[in-house]
Amino acid sequence: SRNIRLAVIPGDGIGTEVVTEGLKVLEAVGVKIESTHYDLGATRYHATGETLSDEVLQELRGYDAILLGAIGDPSVPPGILERELLLRLRFELDHYVNLRPVKLFPGVETPLADTLPGDIDMVVVREGTESLYAGAGGVLRRGTPHEIATQESLNTAFGVERVVRYAFARAAERPRKKLTLVHKTNVLTYAGDLWQRTVNRIAPEFPEVTTDYQHIDAASMFFVNQPERFDVIVTDNLFGDIITDIGAAIAGGIGLAASGNINPDRTAPSMFEPVHGSAPDIAGQGKADPTATILSVAMMLDHLGLTEQAARVEQAVADDIVERLAGWAGRTTHEIGDDITARVSGGA
Amino acid sequence: SRNIRLAVIPGDGIGTEVVTEGLKVLEAVGVKIESTHYDLGATRYHATGETLSDEVLQELRGYDAILLGAIGDPSVPPGILERELLLRLRFELDHYVNLRPVKLFPGVETPLADTLPGDIDMVVVREGTESLYAGAGGVLRRGTPHEIATQESLNTAFGVERVVRYAFARAAERPRKKLTLVHKTNVLTYAGDLWQRTVNRIAPEFPEVTTDYQHIDAASMFFVNQPERFDVIVTDNLFGDIITDIGAAIAGGIGLAASGNINPDRTAPSMFEPVHGSAPDIAGQGKADPTATILSVAMMLDHLGLTEQAARVEQAVADDIVERLAGWAGRTTHEIGDDITARVSGGA
Ligand SMILES: CC(C)[C@H](C(=O)O)[C@@H](O)C(=O)O
Ligand SMILES: CC(C)[C@H](C(=O)O)[C@@H](O)C(=O)O
Repeated sequence: SRNIRLAVIPGDGIGTEVVTEGLKVLEAVGVKIESTHYDLGATRYHATGETLSDEVLQELRGYDAILLGAIGDPSVPPGILERELLLRLRFELDHYVNLRPVKLFPGVETPLADTLPGDIDMVVVREGTESLYAGAGGVLRRGTPHEIATQESLNTAFGVERVVRYAFARAAERPRKKLTLVHKTNVLTYAGDLWQRTVNRIAPEFPEVTTDYQHIDAASMFFVNQPERFDVIVTDNLFGDIITDIGAAIAGGIGLAASGNINPDRTAPSMFEPVHGSAPDIAGQGKADPTATILSVAMMLDHLGLTEQAARVEQAVADDIVERLAGWAGRTTHEIGDDITARVSGGA
Repeated sequence: SRNIRLAVIPGDGIGTEVVTEGLKVLEAVGVKIESTHYDLGATRYHATGETLSDEVLQELRGYDAILLGAIGDPSVPPGILERELLLRLRFELDHYVNLRPVKLFPGVETPLADTLPGDIDMVVVREGTESLYAGAGGVLRRGTPHEIATQESLNTAFGVERVVRYAFARAAERPRKKLTLVHKTNVLTYAGDLWQRTVNRIAPEFPEVTTDYQHIDAASMFFVNQPERFDVIVTDNLFGDIITDIGAAIAGGIGLAASGNINPDRTAPSMFEPVHGSAPDIAGQGKADPTATILSVAMMLDHLGLTEQAARVEQAVADDIVERLAGWAGRTTHEIGDDITARVSGGA
């Protein structure tokens, strides 16, 4: 089989550290990879003013997949790297599914009392190309007492339907076959109505899937006190952003939360990244947990049809986590990467 | 002293049940109350099509305070009662501070492991009259493949400044004197910028207050795994909605979460209500916990300057909760109300 062409964007802060470990594991799993690094992020922005040029974007379209570390640095005003680089990639490459499993691995400490691994096992299907993330809005009389600032959430039948359909298909594949729409239909009446009607309309195509609805506020509460309520969740870009961070918290922390920005139609490469950010406070200290990135690599392998290799990486992580329980705490980023790599190569 | 003129809106579902108990406690605390009930909510809507008439609204302006149970019923399409009744009250009566304490009472079971009462003691100052709650937005080609639906977040310097100033003043009164702005400045760049600049501009007026910033996604995570980070939070209407439900979850559940919709300028009555909804699934069964309403009554007393009485109600609740620990579970709505009433009147 031909090599997999991978674009790597380590990005800022701990991004570069965790990506190194992700690539190490990827190599060990024995797939033929041809990777090219792109030094996008804060450093490049400061040096050249460039966030993401049309040329680089065009080049990125030619890869089979993208592995991204983290984007963002306090030296850059909020929004610039996010909007012009990270979100631009998600939007231009039409990553309309932002897939975020929330799963408590055996051996992981959850902040929730009396919660067992089986209680937290869900997949959040976050829409990735619409809503408040469109960047629409404006400001008048900035800095004066008469300033007004607006943000607009843009939602389309086209955009909602495709992600809802994907979520139904995911739910149909899982043992519990339950799909929960999370929105705020009682306040965001226009967008909420579109989402709810879309779910209602598609439901008959998946008679085996049970559907449910929760407002974002109630769902956030249930994540904490009744996480077993959820199997597959489909939700808007912003609500998905919030709820997956709660998901990361209950499933043992941001160090373990993986994500895939997926283009299910494969008209452009999908992009895999840990849910965590660049964490400038701990950057360069070898303190970052690369597990989220390694699990994102597993998601990438799965997306590329390398299911056996994906399963091997996920199993290696699961085994590594059980060892942590037995007192392997305090490892550096490299050490965790090495340990998981050894398991993947069959050396542990 | 003259009687307190109170408008009571029991509302839907368990709203009527919990309000009965709140009034019982209010009577027992020995303040002179003159109360008038308004049967607003789903029943009235079905009978007359009315949600909130201009006449009733005008009448409500004449009271010293409003006590509200819960609004909303599945028989009414989402948004109608919320927008035309509950949110209309908050907007028209200029409740620009939606005050929601998040406090773990000793004896309450939190879903968080290893968490002590002192770890969760914060106040969320949620903006109450702007942002996505403005109801701005629209829909084109509803029900067709070409449908688009928008929602607009409207934010003003006037609206942001007054709530930020209130939050600073609150923070200055508390031992830790820490104020955290929660927003999503890296995506909602226009509104986020307005909020962040406003906090920065007002901070020098409160040199004793430390300020911090967290994105809504990170803050939601920290509520679960590091709640001790927070003292006073100031945030947007929607983010405040979400985060206070997480707050309710970590502080022992929605049955204990109180709120005040406050008009700090006293140009109209403030309105006090439990954070929970009408819970149609358990309505009429005596299962609802009236504690959140009783704590909202305490907030109301405090707002009316009856601080001694407010403290007495809060203490009665705190004592009642400790008794629960000792095995008083399984009480009905009435029984909990009676027990707290007895303590307030000095009979327990
Ligand atoms: C960095 C930020 C723009 C991003 C988002 O809001 O989507 C992040 O929080 C995430 O969840 O991947
Ligand atoms: C019922 C609903 C409109 C309301 C809100 O979103 O504000 C509720 O969730 C609350 O928090 O009081």
